[in-house]
Amino acid sequence: MDISIIVIGDELLIGQVIDTNSGWIARHINPIGWNVKSIKVIGDNEAEIIKAIDEGFAQTDLVLTTGGLGPTKDDITKEAMRKYFGGEMIFNSDVEKNVLEVVKKRHLKINDLTAAQAYVPSSCQVIQNRVGTAPIMWFERNNKVLVAMPGVPFETEQMMAQEVLPRLLKHFCSDEYIEHRTFIVIDYSESALAIKLEQFENDIPDYIHLAYLPRPGIIRLRLTGRSTDQKKLLADMDFLSNRLDEILNKSIISFEDKPVAAILGDILRTKKLTISTAESCTGGNIAHEITSIAGSSDYFMGSVVSYSNDVKQSVLGVTSLALESDGAVSRIVVEQMCNGVTSLLGTQCGISTSGIAGPGGGSVEKPVGTVWICAKCGDNIVSERYHFPGTRDRVIDRATMTGMLMLVKLLRAS
Amino acid sequence: MDISIIVIGDELLIGQVIDTNSGWIARHINPIGWNVKSIKVIGDNEAEIIKAIDEGFAQTDLVLTTGGLGPTKDDITKEAMRKYFGGEMIFNSDVEKNVLEVVKKRHLKINDLTAAQAYVPSSCQVIQNRVGTAPIMWFERNNKVLVAMPGVPFETEQMMAQEVLPRLLKHFCSDEYIEHRTFIVIDYSESALAIKLEQFENDIPDYIHLAYLPRPGIIRLRLTGRSTDQKKLLADMDFLSNRLDEILNKSIISFEDKPVAAILGDILRTKKLTISTAESCTGGNIAHEITSIAGSSDYFMGSVVSYSNDVKQSVLGVTSLALESDGAVSRIVVEQMCNGVTSLLGTQCGISTSGIAGPGGGSVEKPVGTVWICAKCGDNIVSERYHFPGTRDRVIDRATMTGMLMLVKLLRAS
Repeated sequence: MDISIIVIGDELLIGQVIDTNSGWIARHINPIGWNVKSIKVIGDNEAEIIKAIDEGFAQTDLVLTTGGLGPTKDDITKEAMRKYFGGEMIFNSDVEKNVLEVVKKRHLKINDLTAAQAYVPSSCQVIQNRVGTAPIMWFERNNKVLVAMPGVPFETEQMMAQEVLPRLLKHFCSDEYIEHRTFIVIDYSESALAIKLEQFENDIPDYIHLAYLPRPGIIRLRLTGRSTDQKKLLADMDFLSNRLDEILNKSIISFEDKPVAAILGDILRTKKLTISTAESCTGGNIAHEITSIAGSSDYFMGSVVSYSNDVKQSVLGVTSLALESDGAVSRIVVEQMCNGVTSLLGTQCGISTSGIAGPGGGSVEKPVGTVWICAKCGDNIVSERYHFPGTRDRVIDRATMTGMLMLVKLLRAS
Repeated sequence: MDISIIVIGDELLIGQVIDTNSGWIARHINPIGWNVKSIKVIGDNEAEIIKAIDEGFAQTDLVLTTGGLGPTKDDITKEAMRKYFGGEMIFNSDVEKNVLEVVKKRHLKINDLTAAQAYVPSSCQVIQNRVGTAPIMWFERNNKVLVAMPGVPFETEQMMAQEVLPRLLKHFCSDEYIEHRTFIVIDYSESALAIKLEQFENDIPDYIHLAYLPRPGIIRLRLTGRSTDQKKLLADMDFLSNRLDEILNKSIISFEDKPVAAILGDILRTKKLTISTAESCTGGNIAHEITSIAGSSDYFMGSVVSYSNDVKQSVLGVTSLALESDGAVSRIVVEQMCNGVTSLLGTQCGISTSGIAGPGGGSVEKPVGTVWICAKCGDNIVSERYHFPGTRDRVIDRATMTGMLMLVKLLRAS
């Protein structure tokens, strides 16, 4: 079944907020065999909302909206829905009770605006929003369904998973299965990989589709198949996965769609190794990536972010000789940092970075984007100089990803 | 002038990639007085692309598209555009030259697929993509313009700023001015703020609009006005800004839309203070946020991410007595961490965190989401216990934001 998503909010059209709700919804409806047909982002404007609902119903039987349900004057989705589906605004005591509970949990006081959340169009069924004050509204017309959810990602995610999705499943019955397989590939550029896989792509059955999703340092390959014959679908997907494994061999570092930090964590846990990081230009971002994975305390001991040269020397034992002769952005300094942190925090593995993230601080010899990265495990130590193009954020992200991949490769080789 | 944005890519409809291009474009066309009317996200599907162009041209004179220009088989935007605007695919030697240069800069080899990038529809004018291999295409029909740009954010951002936007400005002439003013507000919930500002909102002239953009710990208030009379617009905006300042007084921590890490950095720089962080549950994310701001090396010395208790003791001097009596997630430990890191790294200010980010590790007394946070400047030290709801990522983000805001408040009070 196809669905349409409408994302509502002026803040999205001026780029102050990035929509993550539609992506979340897509990731959670795909496994049940449903498909997002289109996502439309519009402002807090009644005419636009009504037009978007018309367009949505013209192309799909289910329309999901997020946003515009807050208590303030700029949020007008509820009133636009009332106009579209008819009825009047009525007081709903269950919603009021829920609002009071949520407000109490947050240690806030109820006021006229939060109380106004308890008025809902008489044309909707209310789904209580247990994690926020804006009620979720379920409308029906001509066998089509629209569900209006809040814009706050946390609320939409929680309520979609717990309440909305189960009700939608009951209402609509899907007889088509969808299956995704994702492979994380290193060592190839996108086009080199496409050439390597040309024959493979030609042999794929029509109902299965291959997509290339390049990210810095990796390419995610995704096979998607959909069919009413689940058995055949799974068998074909298994066959194609095995073929890919044969063709790409060691360049596949994961057969699941997971962050590189999680792939690194799996290897460390399997090999019973611990890790620490010493970060200059990445400023703690490698530690942040590693610790964003649940359970990372099993293998991650800690990190020293040595932004100043003083800290590099006093905490990590980088020598003044190295700093004076080669500068902070050099092989010797990044290796001393890596050895220093693994020794200080007592870990077998380490990653360290030193570079110029920019926009200032570059020179002819070491332009902005120059980063030295070191990875070690026991006595195995590798260090490389890189040049990453782009903005400060991009240099930090690329260096973070590259550092983790250097250690992944080192650990897989040993 | 209104514009439509079409974002193309199957990966967006299954939620594997989040669209950041449309937000970037919106942020960069607003200052010239243009307005995003709607954003439509569709798959790599010829019929959908053609339908979306029709819809876009029906509502605006300018349509911008991103995505689907890669060299692999799943990318079909170029062919869909050729069908829509007519003509045939022709070889363009300037594009080939550019592709060769880009490929060389990236130390890659040219192959048949990257070479195929040099074929473009005869109905378009080419804008060379200096930072990628996919040429940017400018089409015109009935005085309307469509510009097709790549999906890779870095490429679209660079080329939009350097090449596309200047050409669009030359082509279309805008006589309307748009002005945004953003205020970062603390101390209020969204609805409490709306009540405080009720009279203010009633007095705003019709052509100026107030929006509430809540984020964890802060609310961004945004005034947007548009008018052909720039002088009056600016005078009215100045008047309203001053009124807001009077009403909200100390609760406005910034009169510019900037990250909390930048606001903190400005205060530290002005007061000539330095900072370090000691992070357990935030895992380096506070250091990462602080160092994501260019020039942060002026005041940020470094950080110790003490994920294990061993590191808390050996590097930061947390006592085993404190760990045994109160546990790692406690006031005494988080204060010892803060004192330890400021002393070790020689800074006046510090932020420290210790908590349970989850999903595991919680108890009845200290459930998942419990975080102790400490901020200090010289002899002033404050520490608080918080409970943040939600997922691991959310707990880490909230604790990061709260730690920075605690120090901002401490520094503004002193």
